[in-house]
Amino acid sequence: MRLATLRRGGTTIPVRVEREYAVRITGVVDIGELLRDPGWRARASVSTGPEIPLHSVADEEWAPPVAPSKIVCVGLNYRAHIREMGRTPPEFPTLFAKFPEAVIGPYDPLRLPPAAPDMVDWEAEVAVVVGPQSTIAGLTLINDVTARDFQNRTTQWLQGKTFEKTAPLGPVIVTPDEFSTAAVVRCRIGSELVQEGGIDDLVFDPAALVGYISQIVTLKPGDVIATGTPSGVGHARTPPRYLRAGDTLVTESDGIGAMRNLIVAA
Amino acid sequence: MRLATLRRGGTTIPVRVEREYAVRITGVVDIGELLRDPGWRARASVSTGPEIPLHSVADEEWAPPVAPSKIVCVGLNYRAHIREMGRTPPEFPTLFAKFPEAVIGPYDPLRLPPAAPDMVDWEAEVAVVVGPQSTIAGLTLINDVTARDFQNRTTQWLQGKTFEKTAPLGPVIVTPDEFSTAAVVRCRIGSELVQEGGIDDLVFDPAALVGYISQIVTLKPGDVIATGTPSGVGHARTPPRYLRAGDTLVTESDGIGAMRNLIVAA
Repeated sequence: MRLATLRRGGTTIPVRVEREYAVRITGVVDIGELLRDPGWRARASVSTGPEIPLHSVADEEWAPPVAPSKIVCVGLNYRAHIREMGRTPPEFPTLFAKFPEAVIGPYDPLRLPPAAPDMVDWEAEVAVVVGPQSTIAGLTLINDVTARDFQNRTTQWLQGKTFEKTAPLGPVIVTPDEFSTAAVVRCRIGSELVQEGGIDDLVFDPAALVGYISQIVTLKPGDVIATGTPSGVGHARTPPRYLRAGDTLVTESDGIGAMRNLIVAA
Repeated sequence: MRLATLRRGGTTIPVRVEREYAVRITGVVDIGELLRDPGWRARASVSTGPEIPLHSVADEEWAPPVAPSKIVCVGLNYRAHIREMGRTPPEFPTLFAKFPEAVIGPYDPLRLPPAAPDMVDWEAEVAVVVGPQSTIAGLTLINDVTARDFQNRTTQWLQGKTFEKTAPLGPVIVTPDEFSTAAVVRCRIGSELVQEGGIDDLVFDPAALVGYISQIVTLKPGDVIATGTPSGVGHARTPPRYLRAGDTLVTESDGIGAMRNLIVAA
């Protein structure tokens, strides 16, 4: 099953995405409310609300599929990316936060932050969406777009990671039964492939991350865990490369789909 | 003016704290809603809701004064603490996050985290509470209680900073007109003074922090900035010292008051 949120008629609506239609999930205002219901899966799968032909849905109508109360990000979780950054595989996951204000929709323009427009880098990631009782409701994509200058101003990465409206999320949440553990996440700038990593290369997989984080803080329905990025970020290149106005940032994975965000000037 | 939140009759109520009474602020459900109103100050000051004699309010009835959507913490912001940690004054503030689930009331018991009970340390801090349009509504106290073992497991401090229900907040929010810029924040374990720092020792003062953070992410009404801790944390002692069951953690400042949290076993 695939869940999404559409912007329609001045509001947002939670939907189940079928091959040709998005089907309104009735009785809840958003995916967050759906995921607080222990019976969310049955409720979503049987809903026979109004059908919206997908060909009639414009790119700008795809909202972030969920509005998390918190986003926990994982650093250095792909073995190949760890090697790229010159580090060794860790005993514990590196965790940092991204505030929810960072999130944008899967096809929204991504404006370079006025305070930090020059070293904005990509980090394509698979993201866990949390369900009731800290279960894994499904998986989606996030691009943990990072202002490398602010990230490296101090030892703590937060300020480079949480610029407002810089983190595409979506396009859909795929339930685990439809997601292959052999899935690959990719990042492209336009048509150029810049990142590619199989989630079988993760040091800490989604279940391990949920378990680790849950000993610290309760993961609530709709919360998001960004599982880390594979090798290929622009900052690690020689010479380094950053996002520029006019670039199209593509974040994709087989089974989830692709986000496309046009980079626009600060 | 002093604002607080009381637990009464199975709910919480926003109040203005006078010398002998707490006066219910009517027309809003909580301090967060109050602070979204540009006229919050007049609304709070003229409210003549039911009066509750302060002597009738039990310790456990004092809730955190506000429920922030996000908490931005500042590291290494007191010159004396920077020296204590062996560092030099920074060009930029070090920012990290604490998730809202960490917050407890000003007199609530503080349970040592089951996953990390052994190296729990104190960090008494003045906290900024944000008002409309990212203004400073007032100041309160937070203890940025930290599990040093988890903090130091990786380069990123988040996991040691955000254990659920470990961060006392309160007891009241004091508007800036009643807060002296010469105020001192103190931490005591029982009657023993362990930290003391004047906020005139801050590298980045509240206004500077609001300005810096606002170029990254919008500070919303009710959000909290923990401004950093003065010297005297237990981890920097020789030998190091940590919180133990039975300790009373006191976090105080002239003008705001004192929080007292009994440490209880994991």
